[in-house]
Amino acid sequence: MSKPSKLALVPFVSVDNMMNLVNAIGPARMIAEIAEYIEQDFKRWEQFDKTPRVAAHSDEGVIELMPTSDGESYGFKYVNGHPANMARGFQTVTAFGVLARVDNGYPVLLSEMTILTALRTAATSALVAKYLAPESAGTMAMIGNGAQCEFQALAFQQVVGIHTVRLHDIDTEATEKAARNLQATGLKVVTCASAQEAVTGAQIITTCTADKQYATILTDNMVGSGVHINAIGGDCPGKTELHRDILLRSDIFVEYPPQTRIEGEIQQLDPDHQVTELWRVMTGQVPGRSSPEQITLFDSVGFATEDFSALRYVRDQLERYPHFVDLDMLADPDDPRDLFGMVARAAT
Amino acid sequence: MSKPSKLALVPFVSVDNMMNLVNAIGPARMIAEIAEYIEQDFKRWEQFDKTPRVAAHSDEGVIELMPTSDGESYGFKYVNGHPANMARGFQTVTAFGVLARVDNGYPVLLSEMTILTALRTAATSALVAKYLAPESAGTMAMIGNGAQCEFQALAFQQVVGIHTVRLHDIDTEATEKAARNLQATGLKVVTCASAQEAVTGAQIITTCTADKQYATILTDNMVGSGVHINAIGGDCPGKTELHRDILLRSDIFVEYPPQTRIEGEIQQLDPDHQVTELWRVMTGQVPGRSSPEQITLFDSVGFATEDFSALRYVRDQLERYPHFVDLDMLADPDDPRDLFGMVARAAT
Repeated sequence: MSKPSKLALVPFVSVDNMMNLVNAIGPARMIAEIAEYIEQDFKRWEQFDKTPRVAAHSDEGVIELMPTSDGESYGFKYVNGHPANMARGFQTVTAFGVLARVDNGYPVLLSEMTILTALRTAATSALVAKYLAPESAGTMAMIGNGAQCEFQALAFQQVVGIHTVRLHDIDTEATEKAARNLQATGLKVVTCASAQEAVTGAQIITTCTADKQYATILTDNMVGSGVHINAIGGDCPGKTELHRDILLRSDIFVEYPPQTRIEGEIQQLDPDHQVTELWRVMTGQVPGRSSPEQITLFDSVGFATEDFSALRYVRDQLERYPHFVDLDMLADPDDPRDLFGMVARAAT
Repeated sequence: MSKPSKLALVPFVSVDNMMNLVNAIGPARMIAEIAEYIEQDFKRWEQFDKTPRVAAHSDEGVIELMPTSDGESYGFKYVNGHPANMARGFQTVTAFGVLARVDNGYPVLLSEMTILTALRTAATSALVAKYLAPESAGTMAMIGNGAQCEFQALAFQQVVGIHTVRLHDIDTEATEKAARNLQATGLKVVTCASAQEAVTGAQIITTCTADKQYATILTDNMVGSGVHINAIGGDCPGKTELHRDILLRSDIFVEYPPQTRIEGEIQQLDPDHQVTELWRVMTGQVPGRSSPEQITLFDSVGFATEDFSALRYVRDQLERYPHFVDLDMLADPDDPRDLFGMVARAAT
C-alpha cells in the first residue's frame, strides 16, 4: 500500500507536544509572542468573519464550536464546559482546535487547546492591560489561584512589567500551589488571607474564580480609583464575579459586545450600557485609559479570534520546533473519481 | 514524564485505518450496517438537536461545520467544498468528524470522513429506496460515475436487492473506471452512451454528477411513471440536476426541509411546495410509495444526523476491529488547578 501524499497529512500537536513546545520556547516568552499575534489580529478586526459560538447545551454542561476566518485562514475551537466533571475525575474544560486554508479548505493544524487556551487567555489579559492599566503599574492582586493563575502572573510580568503579585483564594492549598509554581519567576509573591488584603496597594486586580453562580468576589468598597480590573471568571450566563456597583463606576472594555452581553460581567447591566470594543482602542480610534483616576475594566469572556491567533502562532513555530506528528486525516486518491478503487487497492 | 491517563486519549481513525476497517468488514456489509444505524437515528428524529450547518463562504469555496446531538452523544463534521481544487491537485471535498459524550464533553472518536461520508451517502440513498422504490426493483441507472458511483451501486445491491446497474457519464473514462471496480461484485454492469439509454428499463434512477451549476441531467421526457429517483448531486445553492418539470410530477422526500430548500433540487420550486420528511415515513406516520405509477424523488443533500450515525457505527466497531490509534488530545493534570505545574514538570 502506498504512503499518503504530503498533501493529505495534517500536523497534530498533542498535549505532550504542546508541553514540549511551551518548555522549548519558555512559557513567559510564548505568552508574550502569542499576545503579539492577538494584537495583530485585533488590529485587523474588520477582516474577520465573526460568527457567534455554536453551542449544544445539556443538563450537565455545554459543548461549543467557535469558528472564525480572516479570509486567508479558517479556524475553530471545540470546547466543553462541565462544572460537575471535576467531582467525577474529569476536567471541567477540555479543548482542541483546527486551522485550515480558506483557498482550498485543507486543515493545516490540529492542536490540543486546553493548555493553549490558558496561554491565550493570559496573553489577551496582559495585552489589554498594556493599553488600560495605570502607567508603571507594578503590583497585581490575583483573586482565584486555580489553573489560570500562574499564566496570568507570568503574562503581566512579561508584557506589562509588574514585579509583585498578591495571591488570594478561599482554598489556601490553591494559593500555596500558585506561590510554589511562581517561586523561580523573579516575581515577588505575597499570599493574602482575604481579597481585601490582596487588593491593598495593587494597581491591577485580576479576578479568576470558578463558581458558576452570581458571586461577589469584589465589592464596591474594595476598589479604589485609578485601578485596572481584569475580570476573567465571569464567562458564561449566570456566572459573574463583580458587584454591579463596580461596573457602574468603571469604563468597560470588551472583546465582542454581542457575546459579552450574554456571558460577561455586563450581563448584570442594561443591554444598551455603554462599552468600548478593544479593537477600537488598539487601532487608536478611541482612547484606552484617559485619566489616572479612571477605573478601567476588561470584561473578558474569550473570543474566537484569540484562539485563531494562538493556532496561527503554533503553526508558525512548527518549522523551528518540530513538536508535532503528521496525521493521515485527508483522503487523497491518485484519481479523485476513484475513491472506491483506492479503498479496494488498500486491501491488496 | 508520566504517560497521559486513559481518559485523556481519543481514538483516531486515519484514512489508512478507515480503509483497513472497510476492507475488514467488507464495503457492502459496512454500508448495509451503516444504513441500519442511519435508520435507527431517523426513527428517533425528534430526540436530535438539529442545527443548521455553520458555513464560512469564500470566493473559492466553503468550509462547514455540521453539529448535532441526541442528548447522549454529540457529533460534528468538518467538511470543505472547493470546486476548483481538482485542477490544482487537491480534493474538492475533504472531511473529518468528532463524536463526544454529552454528559462530560469528552471526545470519544476522531475520524477521517472523506471515505466515511461516501459510505453514509450511499447507505442513506439505499435506505430511502427501501421505503420508496417500486417493489422488486432490479435495475438502477447510474448517471454520473465519479467517486460516489460504486458505493451507490453496492448499497442498492445489498439493501434494495438490485441485480443490474446501467452506467453513464459524459466522461467515458469514469464509466470504464466504475465498470472495472464493479466487476467482481456480482452486479450486471451495462455501460451506456447516453443518459437516455441508461434510464431505459430502470426502476431506479440515481443522478450523481458534480458540476456546480443549474444542470439538466434528466429532462422530463426521460422519466416514465413508476420510477424512484435518487438525486444526489443537487446539494448546494446553484447546483441542481433535474428539470423542474420532473419535480412537479414527483412526490418529493427530503431529510430536513430547511436545509433542502436551500441546497437541494427543490431550490427550483416555491418555498412552500409540499415535501415529505423521511423520518415520518420511517416511523410509519405517513406512507412512502403509495402506488405503482407514482414517481418518488429523494432530494438528497446529506444531513448531520447521517454523519452522526456513521461516527456512532465506527466507534462501535473499534473494539472488534482495532484499526485506530490513541491520540493524546486532552490535557489531564493530576490536580486540575495545577495546569501550570503539569507543563513545568514536563520539562524535567
